[in-house]
Amino acid sequence: MLPFGVANSLFSNALSLEEQLFNYIDEHQDEFVQKLKEWVAVESDSQQPRLRAKVIEMVKIAADSLEDLGATVTLNDTGIQQLSDGKNIPLPPIILANLGDDTQKPTVCFYGHVDVMPAKSQDGWKTHPFGLTEIDGNLYGRGASDNKGPVLAWINAVNAFKALKIDLPVNIKFLIEGMEEAGSIGLEKLVEKENERFFSSVDYIVISDNSWLSRKKPALTYGARGNACFSVEVEGGEKDLHSGSAGGIIHEPMSDLVALLDSLVNSSGLILIPGIYDDVAPFTEEEKKQYELIEFDVEEYKSNLGVKEFFYNTKEKILSHMWRLPSLSIHGIEGAFHEPGIKTVIPSKVTAKFSIRQVPHMDLSKVEHQVKKHLEDVYSNRRSPNKLTVSMLMGAMPWIANINDPQYTAAKKAIRKVFNQDPDMIRDGSTIPIARVFQNITRKSVMMLPIGAADDGEHSQKEKISRFKI
Amino acid sequence: MLPFGVANSLFSNALSLEEQLFNYIDEHQDEFVQKLKEWVAVESDSQQPRLRAKVIEMVKIAADSLEDLGATVTLNDTGIQQLSDGKNIPLPPIILANLGDDTQKPTVCFYGHVDVMPAKSQDGWKTHPFGLTEIDGNLYGRGASDNKGPVLAWINAVNAFKALKIDLPVNIKFLIEGMEEAGSIGLEKLVEKENERFFSSVDYIVISDNSWLSRKKPALTYGARGNACFSVEVEGGEKDLHSGSAGGIIHEPMSDLVALLDSLVNSSGLILIPGIYDDVAPFTEEEKKQYELIEFDVEEYKSNLGVKEFFYNTKEKILSHMWRLPSLSIHGIEGAFHEPGIKTVIPSKVTAKFSIRQVPHMDLSKVEHQVKKHLEDVYSNRRSPNKLTVSMLMGAMPWIANINDPQYTAAKKAIRKVFNQDPDMIRDGSTIPIARVFQNITRKSVMMLPIGAADDGEHSQKEKISRFKI
Repeated sequence: MLPFGVANSLFSNALSLEEQLFNYIDEHQDEFVQKLKEWVAVESDSQQPRLRAKVIEMVKIAADSLEDLGATVTLNDTGIQQLSDGKNIPLPPIILANLGDDTQKPTVCFYGHVDVMPAKSQDGWKTHPFGLTEIDGNLYGRGASDNKGPVLAWINAVNAFKALKIDLPVNIKFLIEGMEEAGSIGLEKLVEKENERFFSSVDYIVISDNSWLSRKKPALTYGARGNACFSVEVEGGEKDLHSGSAGGIIHEPMSDLVALLDSLVNSSGLILIPGIYDDVAPFTEEEKKQYELIEFDVEEYKSNLGVKEFFYNTKEKILSHMWRLPSLSIHGIEGAFHEPGIKTVIPSKVTAKFSIRQVPHMDLSKVEHQVKKHLEDVYSNRRSPNKLTVSMLMGAMPWIANINDPQYTAAKKAIRKVFNQDPDMIRDGSTIPIARVFQNITRKSVMMLPIGAADDGEHSQKEKISRFKI
Repeated sequence: MLPFGVANSLFSNALSLEEQLFNYIDEHQDEFVQKLKEWVAVESDSQQPRLRAKVIEMVKIAADSLEDLGATVTLNDTGIQQLSDGKNIPLPPIILANLGDDTQKPTVCFYGHVDVMPAKSQDGWKTHPFGLTEIDGNLYGRGASDNKGPVLAWINAVNAFKALKIDLPVNIKFLIEGMEEAGSIGLEKLVEKENERFFSSVDYIVISDNSWLSRKKPALTYGARGNACFSVEVEGGEKDLHSGSAGGIIHEPMSDLVALLDSLVNSSGLILIPGIYDDVAPFTEEEKKQYELIEFDVEEYKSNLGVKEFFYNTKEKILSHMWRLPSLSIHGIEGAFHEPGIKTVIPSKVTAKFSIRQVPHMDLSKVEHQVKKHLEDVYSNRRSPNKLTVSMLMGAMPWIANINDPQYTAAKKAIRKVFNQDPDMIRDGSTIPIARVFQNITRKSVMMLPIGAADDGEHSQKEKISRFKI
């Protein structure tokens, strides 16, 4: 339990630096919530062009807060965005901020974003999406957890040091963007450009833009699966045909495509592409032990996903299939009839999209080769005159960090101090391009330190962040 | 060869009645073309609500032409059409016309329609779609062949008798509608209502709303396949999921659906549903002989359909698989990702649509049962927790006529006289609901007598009808 309340502050001089910090934070919690309320009120939706000015406004508000900390702040122009209708609109600038340049101290760079996903009251919000609303200690609002709350948490933490005139043990940098929910346009280019400048003195990069696995127990994230997206196109004749005039005499591209898709994965979720599991890293005893410590409620996760049954019943099997084993999902078919009702068409060209979440140490180009060879083999057995084209549309590599890296050790220690328990050491089944971008370009140690809980509902109509309660 | 030209008309009194009729028609061909030009100029597109007034105008023009013949014409109100946006617009009236009531003569009822498919210059028309344009004896324009040309052919033929004061050998009735291209809304109800009145004296119903199998050789159509449309829905959890957070641990509805679809038809076009071929009528020696006589250019048909290869190489195999054997086509999937690009979604509910073109003597309810049982059997082997629902969305029975019926004999004789050759006796691989509706409700003999040729391009940007040339 943390000391709390005004009475204690009378004795602050007798308290340790840590105790002073904790006290300060507890005492100012309502101010922090008020500040978050002000940030959430700015509809900084980066997906809708009409709201671009709001995003830029929000970036400037964040920049002001960083200046208030005493940081040196620059707003870096990332150019314009060309919309699909040909119009150009400005991209919001990216904030780079520096606080401290003591060469004796390590330098930590924090990444966060202040843009949000779209939200409308009529989508089913029970509270005003841009009016932060507290219910039972939960603060509901768009961006509360993704990612305005965590950005403010970092700013508030640094601010506490400043207010108490306690020397920060690290130099700290901030990279704050406003286009994350729209694909981080312009970010990678800026990271490349600043690699030899802004990033040259950086030792550690911390991202607080994901969530814990549990509702109550904190976590550190050390890996994410990659994503190899494929298209399989089967092209028949020159035009769509009518099933009355051509049905029964032609090789229908849809039948070919369905057979190809049916060869990819079996009813137990096992990928049927020969060799695909060859390079998957073996499950170590250390991982096994970590998995045992993780707080993971299978039934709760089922209910979160809205499904009744998983392929597996044990925590270890479920987590390993989510995090460290590849999976294959078929997303849909382009070019076929997809509307309600009936259309007795034989589509002439159909393109399925599927993706493989790959894991260490699968090699992207090897996966691409295996997929193509497999589909071509299956197809040649059909002896269809239709044309098959398999393409890898996108290939994102998995990300994995060394959990024995100093910043992971420091983060574990900090979490133990604040929460009085060790964090879950988790991975993410999704791809986190930003982690991979930072790691690939800067070659620095990257850590993901989630601040939101499993039930924060990012992107949903129930997005919230919770007050700190032990 | 037919006698032709002004000189011959001087001797008309010496000519047989038939010769007089042929002469009259040849001499007035340009007038007939001019009249078709006037009809084509009316953009009577029944699919676009904004053009409804044009359809009604066109129906009235047709009614006037029938009155000019001396027919008793009624315009029958069929009520209103409710559009998907909730608006109501009037349906065009259906024309019922009577010419002659000699109880000693048989009564023939002709069915046709004067509405057309949409057409826009920017769709790729080389001529104005509503400005009939003659090139090398072909008359290009929307509705030229489908179905304004054939309707006028019947009117012109009757008019020739009238002009020459030759007694018609039959009583003739006309049923002309203006909603055929939009699903003949209101027609079936009217046929039911008029069954005991207008249709009571009808002996034969003739439809001229399809085309020959060849470019040059006329045909009579005596059958059409039915159509049983199915939906197969697989429903997983409550919401779409992200392939990163759920891929590898859940039974994905798309994998289930793909497996179900892959169980329907093999790579040779053979339907794999047990028992589906049991009730298909055996191929008779008579049919075999008919097929031999049919003019059918396999390569030309391939080129018309825009495909390089069929399942079969012989005329007999191709025609029997198009006309008298069932086929199964998969049309597409609703609820999955269907756009260009990538979306790494695991759709929660996906619904495939496929249809079976059935043939005599397949029974619709038996087909429905076979399809459901097969899919349920395949599905139970997958042991998926997802919910399967198979529905028959629509079931249209095949239509088959008795080719030894007197009107087929008469039509063959007439075609032999005009074209100097026997017609191809053909079927249609598509479903022709109107033929089935007339047969089911009125129980009269129905014949399809196509006037357009195989290359008339109904519904295409090259729709045309050709001048009569021997």
